[in-house]
Amino acid sequence: MPLVRISLNKKTPAFAHGVADAIHHAMTETIGIPVGDRFQIITQHEAGELIYDPSFYDIQRTDGFIAVQITLAAGRTREVKTNLYRRITELLQERQDVRPQDVFISLLEVAPEDFSLGDGKAQFADALPPHLQKLQATADQSAPHKH
Amino acid sequence: MPLVRISLNKKTPAFAHGVADAIHHAMTETIGIPVGDRFQIITQHEAGELIYDPSFYDIQRTDGFIAVQITLAAGRTREVKTNLYRRITELLQERQDVRPQDVFISLLEVAPEDFSLGDGKAQFADALPPHLQKLQATADQSAPHKH
Amino acid sequence: MPLVRISLNKKTPAFAHGVADAIHHAMTETIGIPVGDRFQIITQHEAGELIYDPSFYDIQRTDGFIAVQITLAAGRTREVKTNLYRRITELLQERQDVRPQDVFISLLEVAPEDFSLGDGKAQFADALPPHLQKLQATADQSAPHKH
Repeated sequence: MPLVRISLNKKTPAFAHGVADAIHHAMTETIGIPVGDRFQIITQHEAGELIYDPSFYDIQRTDGFIAVQITLAAGRTREVKTNLYRRITELLQERQDVRPQDVFISLLEVAPEDFSLGDGKAQFADALPPHLQKLQATADQSAPHKH
Repeated sequence: MPLVRISLNKKTPAFAHGVADAIHHAMTETIGIPVGDRFQIITQHEAGELIYDPSFYDIQRTDGFIAVQITLAAGRTREVKTNLYRRITELLQERQDVRPQDVFISLLEVAPEDFSLGDGKAQFADALPPHLQKLQATADQSAPHKH
Repeated sequence: MPLVRISLNKKTPAFAHGVADAIHHAMTETIGIPVGDRFQIITQHEAGELIYDPSFYDIQRTDGFIAVQITLAAGRTREVKTNLYRRITELLQERQDVRPQDVFISLLEVAPEDFSLGDGKAQFADALPPHLQKLQATADQSAPHKH
């Protein structure tokens, strides 16, 4: 159900796909989505199209910069979001040699009814899928500042 | 006022434009926007850049996959959103032979003041346009679970 | 921290970069972000990929059309947003000869914890950066209809 936009400077198709794989793997590990819940849009850019500050917040960035924007169901706790950020950068570094400093992530939270997975239906309008129900239950029990 | 991002595998310019036409037509029919309220960004992708699960939620997807993300004023009811999803896929199938299973839709709801249609002004900051006023009035009367 | 997507018809790299510069300058002047807080994604389109209505809301648009979508921390007042729209179009006109009518802007508001600037951390999850604290304080004092 999340929709993931990945923007990076053009390297090879294998690199781009490896980046997408790593991000998806991190999402399944940290935000509780099923392995099959994968919808990603890769945009490969020419020199000059991806603009980043090379040192904002004391983070040294290079042309290996990757911007990831994830549209997902609202309700993950701060802890879960932080875990997501950490795991995405860990797996990108381990598998694709991406520098953690080069990974910029932005989340867009929406209601479950704001997705259609196909067939012209709002699959989540009337009932949350199991993984979101479970996530919500966990959050209710343990998170002091869920929102 | 809605901003529509359409991501698809590269076919022909005529196909891409036909897809955009169908989506816009469906929006005018279901969410009450004027015909002139059309702002769409088409991104045509190379093989491997659009990644989708071929069977998540028992929906069989192919490389005809199209991802549509619509930024629009908040407040449509679940019924209206469901009508929108259904009509987009119907018209895409009728006009462009797109399989309904291949149509993924994501909505991003925003405040009216979060749009500028041009001229550096926030056209909807102080007064809602007629079509949004009408939509809201209808929603107030008939929807048990508007949000 | 804002993530800025800029979509325009392909001209020259210098033009595209000048557009991005003007937008960033306008943001630093009106929404209080530091100069270093710059993250922009430019997508240059082929003919037919950027679709706009040529006269909706009595604004005459041309193929110089530019769509800007800014993901930013929630909480700017309507006045600040209106200032942002006006200043973006002013600087685009002054520096790059872009017609004000051709500038479409969309904002996506998110929570501070919904950004990671790098290193796999949620830099703003526990404490707002100084410029957002200051902005918020100003808003609290002066804005009759902040939201």
